[in-house]
Amino acid sequence: MSFARVVYLSGGVGGARLLHGLARALDPERLTVVVNTGDDFLHWGLSISPDLDTVMYTLADLADVARGWGLADDSFAALDMVRRYGGETWFQLGDRDLATHVLRTQWLREGQTLTQVTARLCQGLAVRVTVLPMSDAPSETMIDTDQGTLPFQQWLVRARAVPEVRGVSHRGDATPTTALLQALEAADLVVLGPSNPYVSIDPILALPGVRERVEQKRVVAVSPIVHGRAVKGPLAGMLKTLADKQASAGCIAEHYGRMLDGMVVERGDEASVHGLPVLGTDTVMHAREQSLHLATEVLRFAATLGPRP
Amino acid sequence: MSFARVVYLSGGVGGARLLHGLARALDPERLTVVVNTGDDFLHWGLSISPDLDTVMYTLADLADVARGWGLADDSFAALDMVRRYGGETWFQLGDRDLATHVLRTQWLREGQTLTQVTARLCQGLAVRVTVLPMSDAPSETMIDTDQGTLPFQQWLVRARAVPEVRGVSHRGDATPTTALLQALEAADLVVLGPSNPYVSIDPILALPGVRERVEQKRVVAVSPIVHGRAVKGPLAGMLKTLADKQASAGCIAEHYGRMLDGMVVERGDEASVHGLPVLGTDTVMHAREQSLHLATEVLRFAATLGPRP
Repeated sequence: MSFARVVYLSGGVGGARLLHGLARALDPERLTVVVNTGDDFLHWGLSISPDLDTVMYTLADLADVARGWGLADDSFAALDMVRRYGGETWFQLGDRDLATHVLRTQWLREGQTLTQVTARLCQGLAVRVTVLPMSDAPSETMIDTDQGTLPFQQWLVRARAVPEVRGVSHRGDATPTTALLQALEAADLVVLGPSNPYVSIDPILALPGVRERVEQKRVVAVSPIVHGRAVKGPLAGMLKTLADKQASAGCIAEHYGRMLDGMVVERGDEASVHGLPVLGTDTVMHAREQSLHLATEVLRFAATLGPRP
Repeated sequence: MSFARVVYLSGGVGGARLLHGLARALDPERLTVVVNTGDDFLHWGLSISPDLDTVMYTLADLADVARGWGLADDSFAALDMVRRYGGETWFQLGDRDLATHVLRTQWLREGQTLTQVTARLCQGLAVRVTVLPMSDAPSETMIDTDQGTLPFQQWLVRARAVPEVRGVSHRGDATPTTALLQALEAADLVVLGPSNPYVSIDPILALPGVRERVEQKRVVAVSPIVHGRAVKGPLAGMLKTLADKQASAGCIAEHYGRMLDGMVVERGDEASVHGLPVLGTDTVMHAREQSLHLATEVLRFAATLGPRP
């Protein structure tokens, strides 16, 4: 079978890489990506949406893949000037990247929703996949650490993810957008990208009504843990301190629990997943062809899964 | 005599050029420049203060003198990206220039006054002259034209100063800052820079209490009209339509009227000024040495003027 409507839940880099393949494997009209906005914050007075930007830039083939954030071949003249003025420089914004934040901030202040602003930015970059922020209202992911509670970017970037994580919570009373709920209703497959469950996927699932709707769908997750290590970022440490587990693909399956109909893991990691159909394949994506290959494998695997019991 | 406290009223480019010389001719602690903010506007959602920036960049030796706006050797990567997104591009902002507007907007939104923000930006650029915006509240210079009433930048830049000017007015109920009033009280010389009287100097004089305080001081104006032509900008056309006069240095002296104690004009234009001490000298400034020379001449001339009658 092929799927008529696929919803993909994504954080930043890891999620965006597989998304790039899905956008090639599927007709773009069939694919909706719902993006975590729990990392969003104000910087230089501008509304920054790190995961939305990574997703958008990746789909537009403009992302700086090696660096993992921002636009390829960007310049940093504005940042140099901000440094001269004594402004904050712990979070770096390139000059072209800055245009995204400036316009987003302008359009939000003019009263457009983040969903509308995102659509407008995507249109400018000729992105044809539907990119939806999980909410139009702020929902700040907070990291409780041994050095106090920090907003996500302050912990990840400013504190370099050094403070040990004791808990993750979501501040604010954000609700999912109508567009997100409608996309979930229409979906015949939901894919949880290889993003950090705690800080990328859970913020989406935590919105009122989202988890219940996802649970009614065929759901496949792709493991962000490969051979016991996180492909990128602080996930392995979080699994240790938050779940008291050694990182494994099985931990991810257990984290999502009954919601899943199938799990895609790196070849060799299949045995760590219990009680669930599992596909072992090549999940590490350094090149576009690897993204397309994994996307095709995920879709093929999902099609083999029986209807929900 | 030498002056203990000089206040200089300035618009953008023309005013900034002489200011550069004054800042070299005088101890910076003795010099306060009061800058027109009637041209200020929101662009890309950012607070733009064109005259403040020109003054600040000129004093910091960072201005793009040939182009007449922005920073020398700036890049335009953000502008290119804004164009790609379909944002407004009629008013061009360079990448380093953008940092100024982003930080100004951030700091204003955080509750600092424009006076405080300007001081902070000047400190970042090691500008030692005191630079004061004329007001911390918006006062928008509106241009009544044969095609309707336009905010100043819309008329000058977007409409390229083509619509014929029928009148100039100031919108808003701005008051002068305490710092401005104190600087005027302390001044023993006020210099009106070679800026456009209608749209650069009058907005400052129109603030409640400013004209009265200036009139109590020794005041010298430098003509922005040289041999019947405006050195830069639309002033000659405005003198024609607003005062029904052929442009001359004398028109400028008449415009300011009894406020003036002396007038500095281009050599050869002396005869156009009536009933007032006049100095003819080289007023066109293409190089820094010409600015310093004119500044020295202005100060020397002002020192020869008797006490106010």
